[in-house]
Amino acid sequence: MSNELTWKGYAVHDTAKWEDFKLIDIKPKPRGEYDVDIKIEYCGVCGSDVHTITGGWGPPHLPVIVGHEIAGTAAWVGPKVTGIKVGDRVGVGAQICSCLECKMCKTNNEQYCQKHVTFTYNSVYPESGTITTGGYSSAIRSHERFVFPIPDALELEHAAPMLCGGVTVYSPLVRNGAGPGKRVGVVGIGGLGHFAIQFAKGLGCEEVVAFSHSSRKKEDAIKLGATQFVETGKKGFEEALHASLDLIICTANVAPGIAMSELLSTLAPGGKFVMVAIPEEQVPIPSRDLVVRGISFGGSLLGSKKEALEMLQLAAAKGIKPWIEIMPMKDCGKAVRAVKDGNVRYRHVLKQDIPR
Amino acid sequence: MSNELTWKGYAVHDTAKWEDFKLIDIKPKPRGEYDVDIKIEYCGVCGSDVHTITGGWGPPHLPVIVGHEIAGTAAWVGPKVTGIKVGDRVGVGAQICSCLECKMCKTNNEQYCQKHVTFTYNSVYPESGTITTGGYSSAIRSHERFVFPIPDALELEHAAPMLCGGVTVYSPLVRNGAGPGKRVGVVGIGGLGHFAIQFAKGLGCEEVVAFSHSSRKKEDAIKLGATQFVETGKKGFEEALHASLDLIICTANVAPGIAMSELLSTLAPGGKFVMVAIPEEQVPIPSRDLVVRGISFGGSLLGSKKEALEMLQLAAAKGIKPWIEIMPMKDCGKAVRAVKDGNVRYRHVLKQDIPR
Repeated sequence: MSNELTWKGYAVHDTAKWEDFKLIDIKPKPRGEYDVDIKIEYCGVCGSDVHTITGGWGPPHLPVIVGHEIAGTAAWVGPKVTGIKVGDRVGVGAQICSCLECKMCKTNNEQYCQKHVTFTYNSVYPESGTITTGGYSSAIRSHERFVFPIPDALELEHAAPMLCGGVTVYSPLVRNGAGPGKRVGVVGIGGLGHFAIQFAKGLGCEEVVAFSHSSRKKEDAIKLGATQFVETGKKGFEEALHASLDLIICTANVAPGIAMSELLSTLAPGGKFVMVAIPEEQVPIPSRDLVVRGISFGGSLLGSKKEALEMLQLAAAKGIKPWIEIMPMKDCGKAVRAVKDGNVRYRHVLKQDIPR
Repeated sequence: MSNELTWKGYAVHDTAKWEDFKLIDIKPKPRGEYDVDIKIEYCGVCGSDVHTITGGWGPPHLPVIVGHEIAGTAAWVGPKVTGIKVGDRVGVGAQICSCLECKMCKTNNEQYCQKHVTFTYNSVYPESGTITTGGYSSAIRSHERFVFPIPDALELEHAAPMLCGGVTVYSPLVRNGAGPGKRVGVVGIGGLGHFAIQFAKGLGCEEVVAFSHSSRKKEDAIKLGATQFVETGKKGFEEALHASLDLIICTANVAPGIAMSELLSTLAPGGKFVMVAIPEEQVPIPSRDLVVRGISFGGSLLGSKKEALEMLQLAAAKGIKPWIEIMPMKDCGKAVRAVKDGNVRYRHVLKQDIPR
C-alpha cells in the first residue's frame, strides 16, 4: 500500500439532512514541523458526531466532516517529530490542538488548555484559521502531541473507538481513584458505558454497578464485567445501594427525567457523580442533597494523551475490546442514524473505502 | 459551683417575633446509660439559629430553644460513659444523636447516618419523641458520642463556636486534602469563613484566597491568614486566578446573584466547590462549566466527632481562636439580630446568666 495520501471525506452539507453524506475534497491545514499525516483505516461513530451534524450543539461549519475515533498508519512525519515514524500504527481522538504552553498543557491536562482547545472536527485552528475535519475521511494531519501510538496487541478497529469513547470514561475513573476497594457505578450502557464497565473492572474495582433504564442490556452488562445490574426504571431501585458507591460515571444524558436524586442517594459521603457529556440543556441539580449527603456533582472532558496511552496499555494487557460492528465508511449515514436511535451494541466502526 | 443542674432556656415562641426570647423550663430526654449532662457556660450564635427561629428552613417546633455551639462542664455521666468524667470541660455541636450502628456511624460519618440524624435543637429524638433543645439554656443532655472533650489550651468561649462553625469548614478541608501544596479559596468572610481561612492556613495550605463581595474585610482576612484577598464585586476578579485552585469552601449563601461561573473558573481540573450551608432555594448550577473545566460542585454537612477532636487539637497547637464578642445570654435577641444583619465580626458568644 502506498503512502501517497488522498484527501477526501464524507461530509454533511445541511443539518436538516444529517444522514446525507457526500464525498468531498479536503484541504488540510499547512504542514507543521511537528505534524503527522495519517492514512485513516478506521473511524468510530460517536454520539458527538450526531450532536454536531444535527445542530444539537449549535450550527456547525458546513460542510462538516465528523469522526474523532481515528486509527490508521503514519504516512508522513514532520522533521521535528520524535515519537512517531512513518508506518507506525497510530490514532487520533477528539482533540487535535492546544497551546502546548500553558500550565494545563504542561501538566497532562491539555484537554483543559487555558488558551484554546481545538477539537478534531468543526473547530478552528487558531493559526491558520483552517476548519478541522474529522475521520469520516481518507486522511488527517495532526501535531504529534495529539497522535497516539497504538500497541501491537490491539487491532486498529478496536483501538479507534477507545480514542474518544474510551478515554472519556477512563480519565474520570483514574482521576477519581477507581481501583481495588472502590465501588463504581456506570449510568447508561452504550458506547461510553460499555467501556466504563470494562475499564472499571480492568482497574480492579471491587464493585461495578451498571445502571440502565430497562433490563434489556442486563446480560451484556454482566458479560462486560458488571458485578451488579440495576434497572433504574423500577421504583426503589436505589434503596439497596444507599450511600454505598464512591463514584458514578454518568454516560447517559443528564436531562429532565433522569432519576438524579435516586442516583445521588447511592453515593457514599465524599462520593462523586461525574457527567462525561456536555448536556444540551441546563439541568436542575438537587443542591440540598449534595450538602446533606456530603457528595458532589461534576463533569469531565475527554482525557489527556498520558491517560490515552495508559488506557491503551491497560486494554492491551487485560484484553479489553469494544463490542463493535464494522461497516464500510460510505454507510456513515446508516451508522449515525443507528446512534441517534440508540440501536448500537455498542459501537459502529467505519472501515476505509475511499479510493486512493 | 455546684453540679446541681437547672433546666431552663431562652425560647422563641413565634417566628414572627424571632428576636423575642423568654426564659422557660426545659424537660430533657430521659437519662440514658451513655448520657452526659452538661452545665452550659457558653454558647455561640450561628446562622442556623436564625434560619430556624425565623422559619427560613420551615416552621420550627415552638417554643424553640436554639444554639448548637455549646461549651461547659460535665455535671453527671451515665454508668456506661467511658470517655468523660464529671468536671471535664466539654462541648456539643450541631448534632446530638444518630443510630450509632449503620455503616456511616461506624466509619466516622455519623453526620451522614443512614437512619436518623438528630440535630441539637428543633429535632426529635427517635426513641423518646422529645424535641431537642439547644444551648441558649442552662444545661443539655447528650449521648457521649456527641460530647467533645475540650483541650486545656483552649478557652471554653473560644472552643464553643468551633463546634459547629469550625468543624463545618474543617471537615470539607481535610476530606478534600487541604494541606501543603494545596491552593484553597474561601468564599464569604463571616463566622464560618473566618474559621476556614485560619484552618486552611493552620493545615499548611500553600495559598488561601479569601473571596468577599466588597473590600471591607480585606485587612481582617489577611490577619486571619489569607495569602490573597479578592473582591468579587469587581468585574474580572477571577481572571488572575484562572484554573488555579484545588478547592473552594463556600460559606456564603449559594443563591441567585453569587458569581458562580466566575468562581468556578478559578478551579483547576479536579477542583471542587463545596457548599457548607443548606441553601434555602434551588440554585442553577452551570453544568456545562463542570464538564469543560473537569471540576465538581458539592456539599458538606457538619463534621464527625473524629474531625471535631482533630480540629480542637489543631486549634490548640496553632493558637487558632475565633474572633468573638461575648454578651450575656439574656441578650440573645440582640445577637441573632446582628447575625441576621451581617453585623458580626466574627462570632457572638453568649455567656451563661441563668440563675442556678
